[in-house]
Amino acid sequence: MAEPILFYFDFASPYGYLGSHRAEALGERLGRPVDWRAILIGPAMQMTGGRPLTATTLRADYAREDIPRLAKLYGLPFVEPPNLPILSLRPARAYWWVREHKGPDAARDLARALFHSHFGEGMDIAGEDETLAVAATAGLDVDDLRAGMNDPAIKDLVKREGEISLTRGVFGSPWVIVDGHNFWGCDRIDLADRLLAPDD
Amino acid sequence: MAEPILFYFDFASPYGYLGSHRAEALGERLGRPVDWRAILIGPAMQMTGGRPLTATTLRADYAREDIPRLAKLYGLPFVEPPNLPILSLRPARAYWWVREHKGPDAARDLARALFHSHFGEGMDIAGEDETLAVAATAGLDVDDLRAGMNDPAIKDLVKREGEISLTRGVFGSPWVIVDGHNFWGCDRIDLADRLLAPDD
Repeated sequence: MAEPILFYFDFASPYGYLGSHRAEALGERLGRPVDWRAILIGPAMQMTGGRPLTATTLRADYAREDIPRLAKLYGLPFVEPPNLPILSLRPARAYWWVREHKGPDAARDLARALFHSHFGEGMDIAGEDETLAVAATAGLDVDDLRAGMNDPAIKDLVKREGEISLTRGVFGSPWVIVDGHNFWGCDRIDLADRLLAPDD
Repeated sequence: MAEPILFYFDFASPYGYLGSHRAEALGERLGRPVDWRAILIGPAMQMTGGRPLTATTLRADYAREDIPRLAKLYGLPFVEPPNLPILSLRPARAYWWVREHKGPDAARDLARALFHSHFGEGMDIAGEDETLAVAATAGLDVDDLRAGMNDPAIKDLVKREGEISLTRGVFGSPWVIVDGHNFWGCDRIDLADRLLAPDD
């Protein structure tokens, strides 16, 4: 089977939500599975001096113009959630616990449900209860998951995944890596197959 | 005649160089003239907390991977100049003097020649002599232009253009405005006609 493409994302990132669909579309075009890896992009942003699009008036105004039209172009629902950006620590822990204990397919289904709830329906998913409510709709056992999210091993795993992503050069969400080649943003993910073989 | 599309750029911006060609291609698709407006993006970056792509190792590594492949995809020459990013004050003053005194077509030709020299051939264009050398190849009178670049009215004009761009929300290069709609980056410029009419 072809090497998976790595898809790094932060649950707090609206472009990460849109990019998750672009990464899956890229995986289909390339005939490769997509390895979803939830991270917190904050540490990389601090290192690179990046700022959330909502950090200043100018950036927030642009994001308000850009994200809904891009969602519309992609045929995805978008409702702006309150209090952007959330701290995405709990959804990330839930993701990795499910991945470790229920496998990558169940984790990807949870990630899709969390992204859809947060950016497709404008719900808050930051709190433990909010994350668990979405997990329940994805068919997961809420009591198991609540315990799992507070497991020190899972907390460590989330931290380690963030560190690994930094060693790979990831400083934005969404971010896709194909055979060591890096693609930051929905637009680059869409161009990835052409950029990998620009002479075709 | 259709309203021109506004194209804001910084001569120090490699994506601005690539984007100038994308803005012209967009103008052709929309059947509209392109109004090139040279600015210094520094003040907007300070306001928004943005950082040049070369500001940190992570960002510089990504830019080194991304810019050449994008140039190749677009069929444009790219040679990385030394000491990125330059202070683009002198090229911007030259641009606006030519625009005021020789008209927008001559100014656009100069801008193309400056971008090509800086990013297509990897030459430094920051200094007065370097800017004037490029202007000479674009058929401009070097003595007139040298005096013009030091004219206080031109210095004011460059400052004022930057201030106007901020009131329009511009905080990146390249940046295109079509009928009040904003498009930041080569990729958004390429999508602009689809984003303006996503239901077509």
